Amino acid sequence: MKKWSESAPSRVPSLTVRELAGLLACPFEGDGERKIFGVSSLEKAREGDLVFLAQPKFRNLLEATRASAAIVPAGETFRGIPVIFSDNPHLTFVKAVDLFFKPYRLDPGIHPSALVSPSAVLGKNVAVGALAFIGDDVEIGEGSVIFPLVSIYPRVKIGEQTVLHSHVSIREDVKIGSRVIIHNGAVVGSDGFGYIQTGDGSHQKIPQKGTVVIEDDVEIGANTAVDRAALGETIIRKGAKIDNLVQVAHNVEVGENTILAGQTGLAGSVTIGKSVVVAGQVGVADHVNIGDRVIIAAQSGITKDIPPDSFVAGSPHLDIRDWRKVWVLLPQLHDFIKDVKKLRARVEELEKKQKK
Amino acid sequence: MKKWSESAPSRVPSLTVRELAGLLACPFEGDGERKIFGVSSLEKAREGDLVFLAQPKFRNLLEATRASAAIVPAGETFRGIPVIFSDNPHLTFVKAVDLFFKPYRLDPGIHPSALVSPSAVLGKNVAVGALAFIGDDVEIGEGSVIFPLVSIYPRVKIGEQTVLHSHVSIREDVKIGSRVIIHNGAVVGSDGFGYIQTGDGSHQKIPQKGTVVIEDDVEIGANTAVDRAALGETIIRKGAKIDNLVQVAHNVEVGENTILAGQTGLAGSVTIGKSVVVAGQVGVADHVNIGDRVIIAAQSGITKDIPPDSFVAGSPHLDIRDWRKVWVLLPQLHDFIKDVKKLRARVEELEKKQKK
Amino acid sequence: MKKWSESAPSRVPSLTVRELAGLLACPFEGDGERKIFGVSSLEKAREGDLVFLAQPKFRNLLEATRASAAIVPAGETFRGIPVIFSDNPHLTFVKAVDLFFKPYRLDPGIHPSALVSPSAVLGKNVAVGALAFIGDDVEIGEGSVIFPLVSIYPRVKIGEQTVLHSHVSIREDVKIGSRVIIHNGAVVGSDGFGYIQTGDGSHQKIPQKGTVVIEDDVEIGANTAVDRAALGETIIRKGAKIDNLVQVAHNVEVGENTILAGQTGLAGSVTIGKSVVVAGQVGVADHVNIGDRVIIAAQSGITKDIPPDSFVAGSPHLDIRDWRKVWVLLPQLHDFIKDVKKLRARVEELEKKQKK
Repeated sequence: MKKWSESAPSRVPSLTVRELAGLLACPFEGDGERKIFGVSSLEKAREGDLVFLAQPKFRNLLEATRASAAIVPAGETFRGIPVIFSDNPHLTFVKAVDLFFKPYRLDPGIHPSALVSPSAVLGKNVAVGALAFIGDDVEIGEGSVIFPLVSIYPRVKIGEQTVLHSHVSIREDVKIGSRVIIHNGAVVGSDGFGYIQTGDGSHQKIPQKGTVVIEDDVEIGANTAVDRAALGETIIRKGAKIDNLVQVAHNVEVGENTILAGQTGLAGSVTIGKSVVVAGQVGVADHVNIGDRVIIAAQSGITKDIPPDSFVAGSPHLDIRDWRKVWVLLPQLHDFIKDVKKLRARVEELEKKQKK
Repeated sequence: MKKWSESAPSRVPSLTVRELAGLLACPFEGDGERKIFGVSSLEKAREGDLVFLAQPKFRNLLEATRASAAIVPAGETFRGIPVIFSDNPHLTFVKAVDLFFKPYRLDPGIHPSALVSPSAVLGKNVAVGALAFIGDDVEIGEGSVIFPLVSIYPRVKIGEQTVLHSHVSIREDVKIGSRVIIHNGAVVGSDGFGYIQTGDGSHQKIPQKGTVVIEDDVEIGANTAVDRAALGETIIRKGAKIDNLVQVAHNVEVGENTILAGQTGLAGSVTIGKSVVVAGQVGVADHVNIGDRVIIAAQSGITKDIPPDSFVAGSPHLDIRDWRKVWVLLPQLHDFIKDVKKLRARVEELEKKQKK
Repeated sequence: MKKWSESAPSRVPSLTVRELAGLLACPFEGDGERKIFGVSSLEKAREGDLVFLAQPKFRNLLEATRASAAIVPAGETFRGIPVIFSDNPHLTFVKAVDLFFKPYRLDPGIHPSALVSPSAVLGKNVAVGALAFIGDDVEIGEGSVIFPLVSIYPRVKIGEQTVLHSHVSIREDVKIGSRVIIHNGAVVGSDGFGYIQTGDGSHQKIPQKGTVVIEDDVEIGANTAVDRAALGETIIRKGAKIDNLVQVAHNVEVGENTILAGQTGLAGSVTIGKSVVVAGQVGVADHVNIGDRVIIAAQSGITKDIPPDSFVAGSPHLDIRDWRKVWVLLPQLHDFIKDVKKLRARVEELEKKQKK
């Protein structure tokens, strides 16, 4: 039956252990001609699968696995199946997965049902899916993939090899880099939430005339919202990774390689440094500045600036050590208050006796 | 004026109390020929409405109602209007509502503007709305309804009588059961959020090559996101109900008949048992296992496994009884610390006197 | 190159300080013929920009600005550049921004790829973008703008000058007022989350046969969800402003000019008064009533009614003053418990001596 412009996921039919080790630039031991067809976890592997051993303590799983080859740490002595050696088995495994699995993408070309403005400029090998909308003066770089039903407002600039999934909205004038992935339903460039109260209690909207810049290698999760700046730019720096349902308000700057986990919210004008890890459901109050390499535990509420290399938790946040002390003690509060009552009784007793 | 393929909400013109009681398989007393045209609450009912009395303590509302008939608990003595008896008046009322009200659905047929791949296989009486996209090798079972502007990626399998509302995205290879309802903007099968840090601080994406399985009778709320597994499947078991804006990360398993309220987030590889109730804005940390019939209060943060039949609250969570003790005592902390200061003064006084 | 039906953002080429002051109805001093081309912040202004000084304490920024004119408080003595006087410089500035900047809108007219039911009634100068879907019996008032890929279910009524951005879903029978703005991906009228447990542990869906009413001048953020009522109406009153990713459950009523910040969630049947400010990530439990002019701090959890004019924080919430006391004391809990131990030792010592 005739197919459309979608390609099936392309799978390498098989690789030998020797070929695999070569592609991964790692040494191996054992039968180099054994064929590998896919990847799996130690527990679920079947014949033909490649697995990896992250830590020596899981060696018993490796001994029991049905896999045909394994990536193992440099010093590992297990030889039950062919082994490929790596200083970072997990990372090497991820690279191996990439050899066997390509995520689903559209083939290049513009689907006849897509609406592409005549003034839009599309690079070589761009794919535009069915019923996608691309507005005036949009520019899309080579090899980018626009899935069905995406909406790109006028004057948006998109780099190369970027992927926008169905139901993504990119608002007017937004700039998006190369190798960016934006998942379904995410919105980039919606108006920031800014009002001034007028005399009668109603709210006058502050025009949101800025835009959003998404740098290269950023990933944005499903149904996440990144608001445009009131003036200037909301910026997501190179290599930042943002999970699903995250709120990024106007004029925020998210630093290079920073991670924002699911349902986290950053209020207006927050700045976050490089290589920060913000766990899920965290809230950061407006205008707060967070230093490089900070770690913020899940559900924290951040109302003050955080210096670089801190690890914080709680709402409002404390240093993680202080926070842990508090949360160990809180459940003991009841007993503790009882203890004080007893102590008071003893003091009363002492006072009585002393009076005598 | 000509209508499209949408049906108006079909309403039964009227039923007599006798017919109604028959359809509900309940006994009744009073005028069996009285006509009922709709349903309402006790307070807002008008002539022609059916209402229900959940508990005897609201009898005064029943006495004042303008409704034409009521479903009442088995022992109820009120006879001011015809009464239908039920051991579970609320459940019987819900079944009665179903007799008077059908939610809006599309009529069967494929809208000429929909883009359906020639390799897709659609069952009898499937409805596909305007501008919907259905990819290669998709299968949709009998009677399912795909609303306008839905996007279904290739190789998705959908059961019978399932409903996908506008702007739902179903990603490649996802499996969805029968009688599932997915509300507007929900995303099923977006990539899980998984990276490995490389030496230079950048994050290498871990391919998300698994998929999602949504079993029968599941409901998923508006703008909720369910990520595909890294390897294997993210699973939502039969009868689970998920509210709006919920985050379900990769490799999660949600048990049968479990309820996840709005804005709750489940991190990667969480497993939740059967008939669990998770209230709103709860966060569950990765790899946590939650037993059957657990209840989790709103805004809780769950970082450790929870045994079956527990009721927990707080972030990090405590048993509900311990949590309540803490939150009763916390506002007293200030006074309590003052008390200890006073006690210390008294001890000092005692010490002074003893020295003399 | 030919353009589509989108207009470029219309910008006034320039205004003199005199013209500007006239349009803003404010007095000015300095060179009235100086030309202003745009607006900016004090720090980022370039020649030709208008800026504003909110508070005298930022006068040093004003002295250093490269802007060509400034809006200043009534008493300000700075005369380095032409100044326009206002009792509320920020509000006057916002009005000035409106003179220089019009947000991107579609030109009136129906894009040929839009699917508009023949029974829909559209007012004068309505714009309907590419690939938008408008169902049977929908009514849209004069000057409203429906962006590409919007889905409007049957029987929806929309007022005048209302704007719906791409990927907005408006479900059947919803009523929306005039001058409403709904951002991308927002859903209005999805089913409320209501079930009754049946004997076998499964959940029977309670039909959600009500609807949603959005009054005039409301703004709704990206990917926010507003559920339809089970019976009756979910209501968002005139002038309320709702941020991104907010959850509004069935039968909620949000009062006039009330503000709901990002990721806040209101459970079923909550009522919120007028001019309330709910900060981000707040949760309000079902059936709670919140009075007029209440302020709720971020991440609060509201489980009980709140009287008018309160300011609360915490989960569960406390009066803000009590909450602050608790959060000042909590980090001291560890030291405090130590103190009590020492005190106990002293009491023991006293007891020993007394026995002698």
